[in-house]
This record gives sequence, structure tokens and C-alpha cells, in this order.
Amino acid sequence: MKKISLLGISLMLSASSMMAQNMQPSTNIRNARFPQITSDHRGIFQLRAPEAKDVQVDICGKKYPMTRDDKGVWTVTTDPLMSGINYYFMYVDGVQVSDPASETFYGCSRMSSCLEVPYADGDKRFEMADVPHGETTMRRYYSKTEGAYRRMFIYLPASYQKDAKKTYPVLYIQHGGGEDERGWALQGRTDIILDNLIAQGKAKDMIVVMPDGNCRDFIKELTEEVIPVVESTYRVKKDAASRAMAGLSMGGIQTLNIAVEKPELFQYIGVFSSGWFANGNNRMGGTNQEDPYKKLSARKDYYNKQFKEFYLTMGDEQDIAYNNCKVMRQRFDEIGIKYKYFSTPGGHTWPVWRESLYQFAQLLWK
Amino acid sequence: MKKISLLGISLMLSASSMMAQNMQPSTNIRNARFPQITSDHRGIFQLRAPEAKDVQVDICGKKYPMTRDDKGVWTVTTDPLMSGINYYFMYVDGVQVSDPASETFYGCSRMSSCLEVPYADGDKRFEMADVPHGETTMRRYYSKTEGAYRRMFIYLPASYQKDAKKTYPVLYIQHGGGEDERGWALQGRTDIILDNLIAQGKAKDMIVVMPDGNCRDFIKELTEEVIPVVESTYRVKKDAASRAMAGLSMGGIQTLNIAVEKPELFQYIGVFSSGWFANGNNRMGGTNQEDPYKKLSARKDYYNKQFKEFYLTMGDEQDIAYNNCKVMRQRFDEIGIKYKYFSTPGGHTWPVWRESLYQFAQLLWK
Repeated sequence: MKKISLLGISLMLSASSMMAQNMQPSTNIRNARFPQITSDHRGIFQLRAPEAKDVQVDICGKKYPMTRDDKGVWTVTTDPLMSGINYYFMYVDGVQVSDPASETFYGCSRMSSCLEVPYADGDKRFEMADVPHGETTMRRYYSKTEGAYRRMFIYLPASYQKDAKKTYPVLYIQHGGGEDERGWALQGRTDIILDNLIAQGKAKDMIVVMPDGNCRDFIKELTEEVIPVVESTYRVKKDAASRAMAGLSMGGIQTLNIAVEKPELFQYIGVFSSGWFANGNNRMGGTNQEDPYKKLSARKDYYNKQFKEFYLTMGDEQDIAYNNCKVMRQRFDEIGIKYKYFSTPGGHTWPVWRESLYQFAQLLWK
Repeated sequence: MKKISLLGISLMLSASSMMAQNMQPSTNIRNARFPQITSDHRGIFQLRAPEAKDVQVDICGKKYPMTRDDKGVWTVTTDPLMSGINYYFMYVDGVQVSDPASETFYGCSRMSSCLEVPYADGDKRFEMADVPHGETTMRRYYSKTEGAYRRMFIYLPASYQKDAKKTYPVLYIQHGGGEDERGWALQGRTDIILDNLIAQGKAKDMIVVMPDGNCRDFIKELTEEVIPVVESTYRVKKDAASRAMAGLSMGGIQTLNIAVEKPELFQYIGVFSSGWFANGNNRMGGTNQEDPYKKLSARKDYYNKQFKEFYLTMGDEQDIAYNNCKVMRQRFDEIGIKYKYFSTPGGHTWPVWRESLYQFAQLLWK
């Protein structure tokens, strides 16, 4: 009895210490035991599906078949995953579903599961910290351009509610295709990144506006609807030197297009994981691929002087936009358009875009 | 040929006019054709699942088996559904999943699909309208009580950003069990309800704070964390006559408990679809069921004078909290505690709670 009981205790301790090495990511719904993250950043997924024939998880571009136990609970442990937030799905008998244990985020043109993988020890740039906190406000407005009620998110820094006289420069920042105004507010952790940078004196106080880029005419929507709402509602500076425009992927093309068409509005431009289509198919802008290069070429000196920062970022060669951006940079070099280029591992993913915002925000208003 | 062609056109017109009667609810993700709502408020659901053996939809307490066509697309049309927002799920081979075509909302302790069924013609109380719009801001804060970063949503009325001197009364409002601070902000449409009421002069300008009620000690969390953050950040009035407390279901019990324990803080109390447990099991408060009645009884005149409104609402007899509230009202009557009671069809659901807020907000600060 004693021996068995001791063994029982020993086994329980062992199971419990194994569990202790794993953690629940912040993207789990309240009280969900799974998914878990191992100490070497593998994901462990679990789904109860006694009647299903086949269950898989799909994360970071790889599908993992899950294994059923005798109670109908399916489990799998993945390869090590990239730090930051990753979209994922489960497949139950071939149907792509979100994981019932995960928070969901609008991406991939639907509500998707996400797994927030911890950052390396000591990398606190994207984590909540004991600093003054700003806020993210949801503002609805009626757009005459789109003929619909729409929504934007707006980051107001910690100082905004404290100093009723202070005015702020504004960064307008766009999500990618299959996402919306929630992308930068939730997946992007814009408020946390800015709170931390501002508290450390690495970025200046600013407002960040996150519009919905799903519209028929982005330039009209931004200039005739979004900017007027922002500039008539919040205490913002209204000159080009106090406006920045940025976007990722589809939003990067929207940013490039408005930078070429309305350069007088912005002195800071950020283009993350993007570039006009190298194959001549500029689907996002409605303009012929050669048009923007002609315009840039015709007024090269004006653009170079107007843009105090023209900042291109990329998730290294595995980024699906790598080639488009490479061709675009070659064209810029030929024309003589100045830009900065920053590349970081991670491909076409939110970890890369958080890093891009982290870098770009430090260049603004200086 | 002509005849066939005419028939073809005629059939196409007929199919198209059938489709035209149906509408896509606002809870669909962008560009999703299904779910649809028929003119008599039935839901039509559809899911592509060629490899599944069994697909069902579960809405408003009823499960509907779906029918597979020869391409593996499953469809069902439900009974007429209640106007407003309804949680629903799909079951794919027994696994409860959210509908890939729907927005998701935190409720039922997970991210759930919702179907927003249109209101009757002319009932615009819960719809966006051409009125001045306030905003809903997301504020993160560190709670010493809970030892964690937490989040609240705060409705600021349209006038807040226009008049830098004006101060406001505050309604604190709690979600139900299996929900969180997002409940009132999204499912509840708090901003839309208040924007409309304020624009019509039916409610006074106010701030509405939507805290996360999932905590070990609600009274401590609200009084030592939430209220101090709100009162040190926003331009609010800080007397009991300018504070209201309300909540639904679990949040209703939290409201009752804090009303009894800290009556000096609030002069307006709203309890929606709730009541202390009639069977003596007061799980939410940690107090013995009889304790609050003893306290109310001992200082009956004080409570009656302190609470300018003590407002109880119910989703008629089909509300799961109906009996708890009925027993509680009998006890109040016996003790001599004054209250108002409002009941509306709909059971224990968000349509009832939107209606409850719509009624309660009109009673405040008068």
C-alpha cells in the first residue's frame, strides 16, 4: 500500500511538474487549459471530438494531424513556433473551424483563432508593463463615400485625458487583406507598443488611427471621411508634418497609392510587407502599374523633400511580398526615390508587423 | 430555344426575387451570403462540409438538423426568431463550433456566433441613426486586487470630446456569467442605445463603464480598482447621486450584493434578469442567502431613501431567473423595500437586456 501510494504521489508530482513547464497563452479564452505552449515554444492543441473521423490543426503554414485517445480527445504538439501572434485553424472532418478554446480575431476573411506565443525572456516590447496606459477608442461614423456606417479604432496616449490643451500628431495605419480596423487594435497591440515606447522616451506622444480599409475608394474614404472625423473630434495637429500614413500588405499598397496621389497630406510613410505588384497587376489601386512610377519620376525632388521618412519593412525572403517590394525598391533606386529598408525574420505575419510598427513609430515627428 | 430561354430568364428572376426578400444580418462577416433572415424572421443557415456525417445548428434553445445537398452543402431554415441578437452554434459531427460565416462574441464561456435579427419596422431604438455619436473606449489597467492586467470598456457620449469642462454622471454596468466586459459594448449596443436616447432627450448625458466582472472579489475590484481608474481619468461627478450600478444575471447578483454592502456609493440600482438564488445557494456573493435580507430589513428606511431608483427587469416567465426574482420581490414586499418591476417577452437573452438598459437609462439622474 505504502509503495503504491508513494508511487502514486511520485507520478502525480511528475505530471504536475511537466504541466508547470507549459503555459497557457493569453489568447486562450478564460479558464481554457489548452492550447499550451512548451518551454521551447511548441504549441499543444487539444479538442474533444469523439464522433469525428479526422481532426487537424493548421498553424504557421503547416497542417498537423491530431491523434485521438480512447475518450475521443484529439491532441498534437507542433514544431517550435514564432514568438508573437499566429493565426490558426482546426479542421474537423474537413471543415475549417476556429478552436473553441481560443479567442478569435478577424483575419483570413473570417473570425480566426490566434495563438500568442511568448517573446524571448527580456523582450518586453510587446507586453503590458507598469507604465502610464493610453486607451483605444471605437468610433462609429457614417461614410457618405461608402454609404454605410463604419468604424475606426483610435489610440489616445496616456497624456490625452490629463492635459486638456495638448494637441497631437497622427499616424493613420491600415490592416491587410482579409482583416479590418480591429487588426492593429488587437492582433497588432498598437496601444501596448505605443504605451511602452512613449514611456521610455523612444517615441513621441501621438494618436494612432486604425481605419477600416475595406472600401471601394480608399483615398476618398480616408481623405473625405476618416481624416475629417478625426480632425474635428480630437485635439490633433493638422499639418503634413504632423501626419503619418502606414499600412501592411494590402494596406501597404493603399499607403503607397495615397502617398503618390496625395503627398501633400503626409510627411511620413510606412509600407510594411508590401509593394506594388511586380507582375503589373496593381489590383488594390485601380491605377496602371506604371502610373505611380511615372508620377514619382516626374516630381522626384518634391517627393524626396516631402517625405521625411519613407520606410519599407519586410519579413525577410519568406515574406510573400518580398519580390514585389524588391522590384519596387529597384525602381525607386533607378528613379532616385529615397527610402529606408528594414527586414526581420518571420514572413508575412503579425510578429513582423508589430516589429515594423515598433521601428517606424520611433522615426516619427523628429 | 426561345421558350427555353424565356423560361431560363423567368426562373432566374424568380430565384433572384426570392433572394431579395432575405437579408444578411449585420453579424455576418464581410461578404458572407449566409446566414440569411427571411421576411418573417426565420434564419437560413448554410455550411459546406462534404465529409461530415451530421451537421446541426443550435439557436434560441433549439437544435435544427441540417440537410446535405449533393455537393456537400448543408442547409436549414429555422422557426421565426426573436428580434435582436441571439447566440448560436453549429455542430459538425458532434463538435460545437462557431459558424465560419459569423462574427463571434464572447458568451456561453467561449467565442460564440451571433445572429442579429432585425427589429420590427419603425423600431429604431437599437439601430445606428443619424445622431451625434459618442464612442466606446477600451482601457487597460493593472488590478492589485486581482494581480493582473484587466480591461474595461467606457462609453463616452458625443458631447464628451466637444466640451472640455463638462463633468458626467456614471453608470457601471455588468455582463452575465460566461461573458465579459465586451458583452455590453458589443452584444448590448450600449453606445447605440445611449446615442439614440441622448439625441432624443430621453436620457441625460452620461458615461457608462463596462467592467470585467470575472473576479474573485467583485466589490473590492469595483470599489478599489475600477472606480478609482474612472474617477482619476475621466471628467466624472463623484457623488452617490451621480453613480448608478446595474447588471444582468450574474452581474445582477453582483449589483444586488454591492447595493446591500455599499449603498452609500450609488443612488440608482438596476437588476436585469436576476435575483438572489431562491434555493438558498447564493453562489455569486459568498454571503449567506439570508444576510442581505437581514441587512435590508435592519436599515429599510435608509435603503429606501438612498436608492432613487431600484429597478428590476425580467424576460417574462420564460426567463430562467424568473423564480429567483419572484421570491426576492416577495421578500422585498415583506420587508418593505421599494422597487420598480418591468417585464418584457424574450427570456434570459440579450434582446431583453438591451430593452432593460433602454428603460433604465431613462430613469437616471432625474
